[in-house]
Amino acid sequence: MKWNRSLPSGTKDKLFREANGAYQLEKQVNDIVKKRGYQRIDTPVIEFEDVFYTEEKNEKELYRFFDKQGRLLVLRPDMTMPIGRVIATTGISPPLKLSYSGKVFRSNDDMLGEQNELTQAGIELVGYSSLKAEVECITCAVEILEELTIPNFHFELGHAQIFRLIVLSLGLDEVAKTELENYFNHKSLTDLKQFVERYPSELDAFICAVPKLFGEADEVLPIAKSLLPKESKIIQVIDELEKLMGIVKSYHQNISLTVDLGLVALMDYYTGILFSGYADLVPDIFLRGGRYDHLAEQFGHPVIPAVGLGINLDTLVALQYQLNNLASLDQPTTLVHSSLTQLAKAEALVKEHPDYQLSLFETLDEALKYGEKWQYQQIIEVTQDKIQVIKVGDPT
Amino acid sequence: MKWNRSLPSGTKDKLFREANGAYQLEKQVNDIVKKRGYQRIDTPVIEFEDVFYTEEKNEKELYRFFDKQGRLLVLRPDMTMPIGRVIATTGISPPLKLSYSGKVFRSNDDMLGEQNELTQAGIELVGYSSLKAEVECITCAVEILEELTIPNFHFELGHAQIFRLIVLSLGLDEVAKTELENYFNHKSLTDLKQFVERYPSELDAFICAVPKLFGEADEVLPIAKSLLPKESKIIQVIDELEKLMGIVKSYHQNISLTVDLGLVALMDYYTGILFSGYADLVPDIFLRGGRYDHLAEQFGHPVIPAVGLGINLDTLVALQYQLNNLASLDQPTTLVHSSLTQLAKAEALVKEHPDYQLSLFETLDEALKYGEKWQYQQIIEVTQDKIQVIKVGDPT
Repeated sequence: MKWNRSLPSGTKDKLFREANGAYQLEKQVNDIVKKRGYQRIDTPVIEFEDVFYTEEKNEKELYRFFDKQGRLLVLRPDMTMPIGRVIATTGISPPLKLSYSGKVFRSNDDMLGEQNELTQAGIELVGYSSLKAEVECITCAVEILEELTIPNFHFELGHAQIFRLIVLSLGLDEVAKTELENYFNHKSLTDLKQFVERYPSELDAFICAVPKLFGEADEVLPIAKSLLPKESKIIQVIDELEKLMGIVKSYHQNISLTVDLGLVALMDYYTGILFSGYADLVPDIFLRGGRYDHLAEQFGHPVIPAVGLGINLDTLVALQYQLNNLASLDQPTTLVHSSLTQLAKAEALVKEHPDYQLSLFETLDEALKYGEKWQYQQIIEVTQDKIQVIKVGDPT
Repeated sequence: MKWNRSLPSGTKDKLFREANGAYQLEKQVNDIVKKRGYQRIDTPVIEFEDVFYTEEKNEKELYRFFDKQGRLLVLRPDMTMPIGRVIATTGISPPLKLSYSGKVFRSNDDMLGEQNELTQAGIELVGYSSLKAEVECITCAVEILEELTIPNFHFELGHAQIFRLIVLSLGLDEVAKTELENYFNHKSLTDLKQFVERYPSELDAFICAVPKLFGEADEVLPIAKSLLPKESKIIQVIDELEKLMGIVKSYHQNISLTVDLGLVALMDYYTGILFSGYADLVPDIFLRGGRYDHLAEQFGHPVIPAVGLGINLDTLVALQYQLNNLASLDQPTTLVHSSLTQLAKAEALVKEHPDYQLSLFETLDEALKYGEKWQYQQIIEVTQDKIQVIKVGDPT
């Protein structure tokens, strides 16, 4: 048999403490969102490809395959689009506070060392146009991260309309748009200076400053506004960001929160405020979200305002593992052995003591060896007429 | 956009109460197995195809696709083979009591109406050769089904060696083997009579009786043995089944338990006792398991004795839904509304009362409409200097 020992790129086995920890962490998150009034939704891992059709940026990362009828299927790369599909195609009516947890998949290259199968949990507030929904998302995230005692987490806020309004105002085609996006993402001051020479406008000063427009809101936002023409729509967008920052800062005095006006939405469906979450010792952004008021439209449904966020739970599990914060597994103290015919009696004894474990070995000898290897304190032997305690290591 | 509203065959969306119920049910099962001393294991959904290479019977049902390097991947159709892979290729050493829960996938035809994406939970006892491991599997299943209050469940036990010993004794080739398997599965008396005329042996009487050899163990097993030559190895196999039935019956006096000597193992890796679980109102077998002593061998590892079982949780969720046994969702009584600037104060009030919910609407008017629609008892409005209670339906 041509057996290949390795796992597919970007996947891993979780065993014992790590698997238990991952399950418990997902449960903690689900418990918090449930208590906050979110209703769970569970969509399939397999979807028709056209559910994700418009996410051009991610299209190359989809795992694609065919069903028996030759229709193109994909493994979902995120949960937001499927939830858009559900809302647009079923009778459920917003406003809704939805929550989910489950696996998502991305066919990344081998070389990148990225996760190709990951567990995400998240919330979607559908049918809420108020900034309160953004505040709720951040508050919910803070509650989760505090409950999980994630050390030194940090949020960065941006706005999808900043990049979009620049593109619109400059009348950029797809090529120039992608170019500008790259310069924003890489904070390339020099490239942006050359770019505005090719596409001059009233926004030149602002565009060139974008790579430096991140940090404390009360420092960055006034500078940003001073660089913009008074009538620019980008000023309104920054005002919205400023308003949200004010509310969130008064709400959560102790959390670290900055803005980055150069944030470009990872998904085309985002239309408003964007959030990213970072933490000490975590190499990547582990939390992403924002407002996406046009998602349902993509499924032929009227506009529904919505905000959501997703958390990469595997990243948090890895962090908890690294910090030795995953709950340790209960170590049984006592192994209860019996013959096959006395097994029911042995089990009854185990049921009474949470730190007892039933021996499923054929012989007492095997049970003794196992008990010694795994440092049990004692073996109890149950026979028809008596119960005998054997200290591990003692001669019997 | 060419938007297709339907879901891939054999998949479904779960919403709200059903999604919550499915999650809770999975959690109940995981809690029970954890308490019984099982350790969780979590393997990827995506595996290389050769992990499932030898499961000829299921091969046509695999979803297959390629990674970026052109290697053939599959969505796992079960959890037992991946666990075999883990044991054979990592340093973890049996004996082990492992548990899992997660999704498995089968590419069934559209017409069959079967589940193509389903949630399974199960246990694997690895490194245990004693019949105690079979008893433990059944006891664990009984505990789960009783905890979930599944009505009138029923177990049927068989033995993989019966079919295998007949094939060996008659020297059947693959074609004849498949033919015999079909006759066993369809309990075709006439076909079996013709079959033994073509392949005559000392086992003729037994083979012809197989379709009738199911029911109460104390009726069926003596008849079965009387039809076999005294030195037949099948008698030893039936003795083992009889021994297990005796233990399990004394252990669980009230459960319904029968034998079926015509059971043929669904997977080639089964080598011993087989179990199937049925329940009232459930169309299919929702629980399958058995002994598979040669699984690790398929991965180039020495023989490890093992027993396991898997439960189709979606079937149980559907049953609970049908019986109206899924926990109903808590209905909040009070919606707490405030302006954006007072949101922190409103949230503090909600935190004190589990049946309060925070309004994320922009205006009080929207909150009132929502409260009326969803039959809240009252709306509380939080302003800077007071808290006002508005009974829903009352003029304000």
